[in-house]
Amino acid sequence: MTVLILTSEQDVTADMAVVELNAEGIPVVRLDPAELPGGVDVSGEWAHGAFHGHLSAGGRVVSMSGLRSIWVRRPGRPSARAQAASPWLTEESTQALYGMLRCTDARWMNHPDAARQARYKPWQLWLARACGLPVPATLITTFPRAAREFADRYPDLVVKPVSGAHPGDGTLAVPTTRVRPGEDFRDVAHGPTLLQRRIRKAADIRLTCVGDQLFAARAAHPADGPHASDVVDVRFADAVGPWTPVPVPRRTADAVHAYLTRAQLAYGAFDFVEDVDGIWWFLECNQAGQFGFVEIETGQRIGRAVARWLAGEWSGANPPEEDRNTS
Amino acid sequence: MTVLILTSEQDVTADMAVVELNAEGIPVVRLDPAELPGGVDVSGEWAHGAFHGHLSAGGRVVSMSGLRSIWVRRPGRPSARAQAASPWLTEESTQALYGMLRCTDARWMNHPDAARQARYKPWQLWLARACGLPVPATLITTFPRAAREFADRYPDLVVKPVSGAHPGDGTLAVPTTRVRPGEDFRDVAHGPTLLQRRIRKAADIRLTCVGDQLFAARAAHPADGPHASDVVDVRFADAVGPWTPVPVPRRTADAVHAYLTRAQLAYGAFDFVEDVDGIWWFLECNQAGQFGFVEIETGQRIGRAVARWLAGEWSGANPPEEDRNTS
Repeated sequence: MTVLILTSEQDVTADMAVVELNAEGIPVVRLDPAELPGGVDVSGEWAHGAFHGHLSAGGRVVSMSGLRSIWVRRPGRPSARAQAASPWLTEESTQALYGMLRCTDARWMNHPDAARQARYKPWQLWLARACGLPVPATLITTFPRAAREFADRYPDLVVKPVSGAHPGDGTLAVPTTRVRPGEDFRDVAHGPTLLQRRIRKAADIRLTCVGDQLFAARAAHPADGPHASDVVDVRFADAVGPWTPVPVPRRTADAVHAYLTRAQLAYGAFDFVEDVDGIWWFLECNQAGQFGFVEIETGQRIGRAVARWLAGEWSGANPPEEDRNTS
Repeated sequence: MTVLILTSEQDVTADMAVVELNAEGIPVVRLDPAELPGGVDVSGEWAHGAFHGHLSAGGRVVSMSGLRSIWVRRPGRPSARAQAASPWLTEESTQALYGMLRCTDARWMNHPDAARQARYKPWQLWLARACGLPVPATLITTFPRAAREFADRYPDLVVKPVSGAHPGDGTLAVPTTRVRPGEDFRDVAHGPTLLQRRIRKAADIRLTCVGDQLFAARAAHPADGPHASDVVDVRFADAVGPWTPVPVPRRTADAVHAYLTRAQLAYGAFDFVEDVDGIWWFLECNQAGQFGFVEIETGQRIGRAVARWLAGEWSGANPPEEDRNTS
């Protein structure tokens, strides 16, 4: 039974899991959908009441019925590197590849439908609350008056993109920013705006979840320095860290497990802010969040956990006791 | 409790259901996401453990908690008509609108995740078989050799797009076509190709499903005429029809109900080919298929069924007995 990894050629995070899989002798096929057709080929037949599919990459052919799991790491757009690339060819290639993979019994990290749903920030806020995680008061609106009333009730606010787009996404780079006192909010009418009560930060928390395994890392917030109080978006800070492992409070662990179950996610990277009272406030859950920087700084074996989940050594519900990391 | 219809301004199919809803006194809000922001506004607040959302269109404001159902008919791309339209604004507006609607208890026709999954043709073929519907032998491949071997086994083939794109989609217009004898299939390597055993057609069947209600219409295939045997794609035929109501065989009805349940679809338009022995062969299920032309030709009250489903007069599982249309 083979592990299929969909990702681009340069992906050190994928490399970390592949090393673990190789060490365990688990067959791995790694391919970039951008190479379909050309470097990657697919074939599927529906006849005599059954479906038989095959994938070919790098000269290897694997049966789709022999896939134990599929890791959607950082795949290119299907057919993006094809000689005759076009939107039409991308649509056809997407249909062929993902359409066939949807017919298999493989486990997904993460299933494309779950991944898509998980990207909706408003839904994240709703689900986090429903699962018992503390969420800072938040408003998303195109009504200037609603924004003004919210600012009256919560005078210390930050503004950030609704889509939670990451600065790595190029043109979509908008950092979380503090709202100035007396802001008139007229521009809210030109596009949905997300306002959130600012949490007085003691630390940033990154909680990486792989199946049932939780890896929490904490980076204390610098209490002094010239701009300390203005650094609200850790992704744009000059230097965050060092990240150190911390235990996960039991209530948070239970809530996070509930979140992942309801979201049908096998992997999720939660960002919390720890306030001065030690409360972890939910900011977001990135179903495709990086874990390499955490593993390097903390020594937490996240890549190994991903490899084990993909290998199916233990079910999501029953991780080995020694790998649990909750308090 | 209000019915929300997401569609473009010009949509006679939506009009048919709105007339029925108006007649029943059911409040309806109809809006085009393309008008957000500008003609359409949204606002949602997460505070004190609850989510409260509002929508505004055409001067009316409705609470999202007051939505009984959402009909995703033919919505424009969010913010497409905004003054400062951009991919960024579309992403933000999509997140805000659909992200908030995902937090409601409303019933969807169809939920966006179910709709997305339902568009994968390879998955449709797999699900149709799994539910017991006859599916013609089909191959989707980028391997020329696989295509040749398939053609040896099934000499009478048609070729069509994997994505099942409709000719109405402009540039994606590729009709289903018969494969010539002796075709060498070299071009298959340049893009996924769908080959399917041609069914000797007695009639086209359109089976429109609304919740548990089934409306079947049949258009006999012209047995004579100069090009009769070459017309394989009803969508490109000069004149198809007339469409007349036909009863649905019990086995087909059971299979279709199973398909819709597993696909989590409240609406689906199935295309079958009836062969010379009377067997209905599954071709596809379009989760957004038109029903206006069927209603006009057959007199079947599909628009009324949609309106009743949206109004929630009966649950999907318990339609009124007189509306059942199965044999």
